[in-house]
Amino acid sequence: MKPLVGIIMGSDSDLPVLREAAKVLGDFGIEYEITIVSAHRTPDRMFKYAEECEERGLEIIIAGAGGAAHLPGMVASLTPLPVIGVPIRTSSLQGVDSLLSIVQMPEGVPVATVAINNAKNAGILAAEILGVAYPEIRKKIKQYKEKLKKEVEKKAENLEKIGY
Amino acid sequence: MKPLVGIIMGSDSDLPVLREAAKVLGDFGIEYEITIVSAHRTPDRMFKYAEECEERGLEIIIAGAGGAAHLPGMVASLTPLPVIGVPIRTSSLQGVDSLLSIVQMPEGVPVATVAINNAKNAGILAAEILGVAYPEIRKKIKQYKEKLKKEVEKKAENLEKIGY
Amino acid sequence: MKPLVGIIMGSDSDLPVLREAAKVLGDFGIEYEITIVSAHRTPDRMFKYAEECEERGLEIIIAGAGGAAHLPGMVASLTPLPVIGVPIRTSSLQGVDSLLSIVQMPEGVPVATVAINNAKNAGILAAEILGVAYPEIRKKIKQYKEKLKKEVEKKAENLEKIGY
Amino acid sequence: MKPLVGIIMGSDSDLPVLREAAKVLGDFGIEYEITIVSAHRTPDRMFKYAEECEERGLEIIIAGAGGAAHLPGMVASLTPLPVIGVPIRTSSLQGVDSLLSIVQMPEGVPVATVAINNAKNAGILAAEILGVAYPEIRKKIKQYKEKLKKEVEKKAENLEKIGY
Amino acid sequence: MKPLVGIIMGSDSDLPVLREAAKVLGDFGIEYEITIVSAHRTPDRMFKYAEECEERGLEIIIAGAGGAAHLPGMVASLTPLPVIGVPIRTSSLQGVDSLLSIVQMPEGVPVATVAINNAKNAGILAAEILGVAYPEIRKKIKQYKEKLKKEVEKKAENLEKIGY
Amino acid sequence: MKPLVGIIMGSDSDLPVLREAAKVLGDFGIEYEITIVSAHRTPDRMFKYAEECEERGLEIIIAGAGGAAHLPGMVASLTPLPVIGVPIRTSSLQGVDSLLSIVQMPEGVPVATVAINNAKNAGILAAEILGVAYPEIRKKIKQYKEKLKKEVEKKAENLEKIGY
Amino acid sequence: MKPLVGIIMGSDSDLPVLREAAKVLGDFGIEYEITIVSAHRTPDRMFKYAEECEERGLEIIIAGAGGAAHLPGMVASLTPLPVIGVPIRTSSLQGVDSLLSIVQMPEGVPVATVAINNAKNAGILAAEILGVAYPEIRKKIKQYKEKLKKEVEKKAENLEKIGY
Amino acid sequence: MKPLVGIIMGSDSDLPVLREAAKVLGDFGIEYEITIVSAHRTPDRMFKYAEECEERGLEIIIAGAGGAAHLPGMVASLTPLPVIGVPIRTSSLQGVDSLLSIVQMPEGVPVATVAINNAKNAGILAAEILGVAYPEIRKKIKQYKEKLKKEVEKKAENLEKIGY
Repeated sequence: MKPLVGIIMGSDSDLPVLREAAKVLGDFGIEYEITIVSAHRTPDRMFKYAEECEERGLEIIIAGAGGAAHLPGMVASLTPLPVIGVPIRTSSLQGVDSLLSIVQMPEGVPVATVAINNAKNAGILAAEILGVAYPEIRKKIKQYKEKLKKEVEKKAENLEKIGY
Repeated sequence: MKPLVGIIMGSDSDLPVLREAAKVLGDFGIEYEITIVSAHRTPDRMFKYAEECEERGLEIIIAGAGGAAHLPGMVASLTPLPVIGVPIRTSSLQGVDSLLSIVQMPEGVPVATVAINNAKNAGILAAEILGVAYPEIRKKIKQYKEKLKKEVEKKAENLEKIGY
Repeated sequence: MKPLVGIIMGSDSDLPVLREAAKVLGDFGIEYEITIVSAHRTPDRMFKYAEECEERGLEIIIAGAGGAAHLPGMVASLTPLPVIGVPIRTSSLQGVDSLLSIVQMPEGVPVATVAINNAKNAGILAAEILGVAYPEIRKKIKQYKEKLKKEVEKKAENLEKIGY
Repeated sequence: MKPLVGIIMGSDSDLPVLREAAKVLGDFGIEYEITIVSAHRTPDRMFKYAEECEERGLEIIIAGAGGAAHLPGMVASLTPLPVIGVPIRTSSLQGVDSLLSIVQMPEGVPVATVAINNAKNAGILAAEILGVAYPEIRKKIKQYKEKLKKEVEKKAENLEKIGY
Repeated sequence: MKPLVGIIMGSDSDLPVLREAAKVLGDFGIEYEITIVSAHRTPDRMFKYAEECEERGLEIIIAGAGGAAHLPGMVASLTPLPVIGVPIRTSSLQGVDSLLSIVQMPEGVPVATVAINNAKNAGILAAEILGVAYPEIRKKIKQYKEKLKKEVEKKAENLEKIGY
Repeated sequence: MKPLVGIIMGSDSDLPVLREAAKVLGDFGIEYEITIVSAHRTPDRMFKYAEECEERGLEIIIAGAGGAAHLPGMVASLTPLPVIGVPIRTSSLQGVDSLLSIVQMPEGVPVATVAINNAKNAGILAAEILGVAYPEIRKKIKQYKEKLKKEVEKKAENLEKIGY
Repeated sequence: MKPLVGIIMGSDSDLPVLREAAKVLGDFGIEYEITIVSAHRTPDRMFKYAEECEERGLEIIIAGAGGAAHLPGMVASLTPLPVIGVPIRTSSLQGVDSLLSIVQMPEGVPVATVAINNAKNAGILAAEILGVAYPEIRKKIKQYKEKLKKEVEKKAENLEKIGY
Repeated sequence: MKPLVGIIMGSDSDLPVLREAAKVLGDFGIEYEITIVSAHRTPDRMFKYAEECEERGLEIIIAGAGGAAHLPGMVASLTPLPVIGVPIRTSSLQGVDSLLSIVQMPEGVPVATVAINNAKNAGILAAEILGVAYPEIRKKIKQYKEKLKKEVEKKAENLEKIGY
């Protein structure tokens, strides 16, 4: 089966964050591909990737980057697919630079931004988006929400029983 | 035809911002509904709206809110649909409060956040998401991107000819 | 005796912070209950909790949450009881996101916000509020302030005697 | 009837903000007093005010101040009454300085902080606190919340009917 | 004579800022070209511009952009020429977003960033850089610094004579 | 000999920072006293200290505090002596809260603020101020500056000789 | 009589702020001089001014500057006199840049920093410092504080009488 | 061969950061010198260095400093050479103070600012600037960019082959 989601990151140092997106997509049974595409060090590769991703059958791009994080926005400028941006936490500015570089896109070219370092939510958002076209994925989203609820209720029950 | 996108806002003072989302959806020929749903002043209405929006046939929610902006995140917690959050600029903190209240969602419940006050991009992102299921909408996205390009090229040509 | 204060938190990872509120209430001899209620993962539970807390006899809610911290504000929208919000420190933004998500509430729905991670002060504030109705609790507040004073005076005396 | 709430501000330039607290208390039928007490220019007056407010029969203090805003915290250090702090917006830092000076109180001396310039919410919070002791005030809080809801619903209806 | 400096901006709304760079280059007698190149709306044009600018004889690029400001960094990734970035002030975040998006570039791809909205300094910096290769431009830089000094000294003299 | 400088801090946890002020004063041969005075936990003690410090012969107060740091400003409101404020670094906000709470004083009541955690500079500033009245202290300031210079020159020489 | 205080500013555009320091010194009967000294445009003049100010009989320097505000710190590095820094509000960053550039001085070279744009407090602080050597100035400080108090008390009386 | 680039830093504690600039210049085969020059502790040395650097044959200055970072801007005010500023990360404010103190220079005196702690990019930028005069250095820049690209492509290949 061909992948529906492309997960890309600016550097292999972002992998510990971005693989959470891959994991959650795996849990939802959604095919994905994952690779490194640097806007700044491999601009040609980035262009090629962004321009071809639609015709290769991808439906959504998840792009993570840190600092002056241009990857999500540049890919968004080159493809009609929805692009989800994951701001990576940085050592000096804790990801405020990444967040603003990704979310503050000009009119015409949106990036769907999630919380700093929260690649898991990027994966879930991708699933929710695919749910628009794939009823079976939406069903899984509902089950996932149900599971989240159950986990909290169980922890609440424990806390109420045992106390802090 | 039934609306595919629900545009909601916390207060009618947000309308001048949010109507840009409506306009762009109109330009793309996408049906939408628009109303006021306050997380804080009408929590029951918000719950009802969020719980019923999927079965009413909506595919995407665009939610704008300012300050301690809870509307997008709360709706996202109650629906399997993708939720796009628009942080509204605020008088004291210029929308930094709105942005952080919307984008910094915990694991499990993403909100697809766009730039402060950039409801137009929320509309475009909604179209891109619908493009996953509706090829004719994706086609329009491509035409829109082409139009953006043309406009810049024309302005560039003018500037090069006339000078600053 | 029925609890007067309900302490809730968005996640069990907030317990090390929130239990300081419980401890100080215990020191004041004030009955409390403590549990987990997630605005985002258990919205129904949150609604039920907030809507029933008054008739169950609670007088004050202490709610702690981090990041896009919606729990205090959402509970405040659903109950006529005073709600005290505790912004939890976060790994990326140190709790600035939590603080702004809790304190910047719109007109009509206040949350009594205390310092980042300062659940102890939430407990003391709850006691001060109960002091409006219960003279014996106000008396304890006065004794507590006296104790704080004594501790500082003793440390000051030591420093003056021994030197730094 | 003796006032239950004391509204104080650091400067008469804060009056346009603080009178919103007075207005809302008036709407709730709660007696209040309002005056100027500067922590920095009239420290003795501030001490006297804070030390005597309880025995004069006040139950809650609302204190507004801007910049290095010490009034709410200093009053809180001198009285067992709950103190509500209103950070006033400032010309250079938009009230971020006021907010942090008021909310970041050390352990032992909480200030119940509301949003920047949101004195109306300080008044509502005072009413909610008084509701712990006065059932008729809590009733009014419920009516007020009902009114807020109605207003939003009416505006929503209009928007749905007329469109943006 | 062929231009040595290329001045580009993401949008014609940036022209009032960027033309200050053009003016100061004109004052130094340095040939320049000025046009609009949007990283997000005309990515192909941007690629072409950045890839060809060196062989067209340009020696320095001045690039201004606002918000999620990707133009300077993307051009820097595609050319061996030094790129000077001008962060444009924005309505919500005053240019903090632009500044961080431009200055926080990853290792390997620097952008020489100047102050927010300070395109004049971008022009002066370009002249200083050209001064490395062109002694007559360095001479003009020295004269310019002398002129700045004279202006301040004259104003100081006036103030000392007339008083404030 | 009677002390000329009073060093006070809001909590004994600030001692590791504030003792640097004491050390440098000792190095300059300036008499000082050091103690704990909490604006929030010992307001009476603070009032007494601030009101009596001038008649006790002190000439300068150095006050360190963190978070909602009211000590320096409150002491400044109660004494005609110059007050030097040391913002203490805090765990959540790194001392930004302390800095703004100390430096942003209203017209009429200045606090001479130094860098976050830089109590050494508070001591040096106190010496510089005393230098206005005591020529032998000014002489020591000059010697100190000379020593600083020598140390840097020596390190520079080493680096130039040995290389990095 | 020779001036005791030197007021300097980086640009004549800072004069509307800095003259408040001059006015308050005039009110205290303290001789001052006022001129323009730019660290960046007249570095030689700045060096000369800072190196000679002590032998010319000045006792305190008040230096105002905005943006990358180097004037106060550079003067402080060159003179044993106490230097008071006034951060000037800036159009993009509201004076946060000025504040941090002035207050965050390294160990060894303090600048006594006052609030953003608060040159009046710089004048009062200068008077307080001179009060260490000149008892008649300290007396005036006390009278000034008394006057501040009276003004607030009168305004308070009015508000209490007339109401808001 | 005489050095073309002067690398200076405010303190030897900045050496671990600044030596990355030296290393990369070494890799490019560009001669440099490296030493300590403190704007605040050795102002005379700084003046001398900045005033003589051009006639000594240097073409570019790289200056790193932290906190109230005045070294880059002061050197820029004294030399017609291009000055590259490296903001050093600081313990309290993570380098935000350094960044603003360096980048926000007034009109007339630019500093080419790179990312916080990114001295490597300062070295690369210096090489790019020298590339304007030295074709063999520009050639090396191109080779360096090619190398960066290859490294990313290799890592991408690995990730695609092995998976995360």
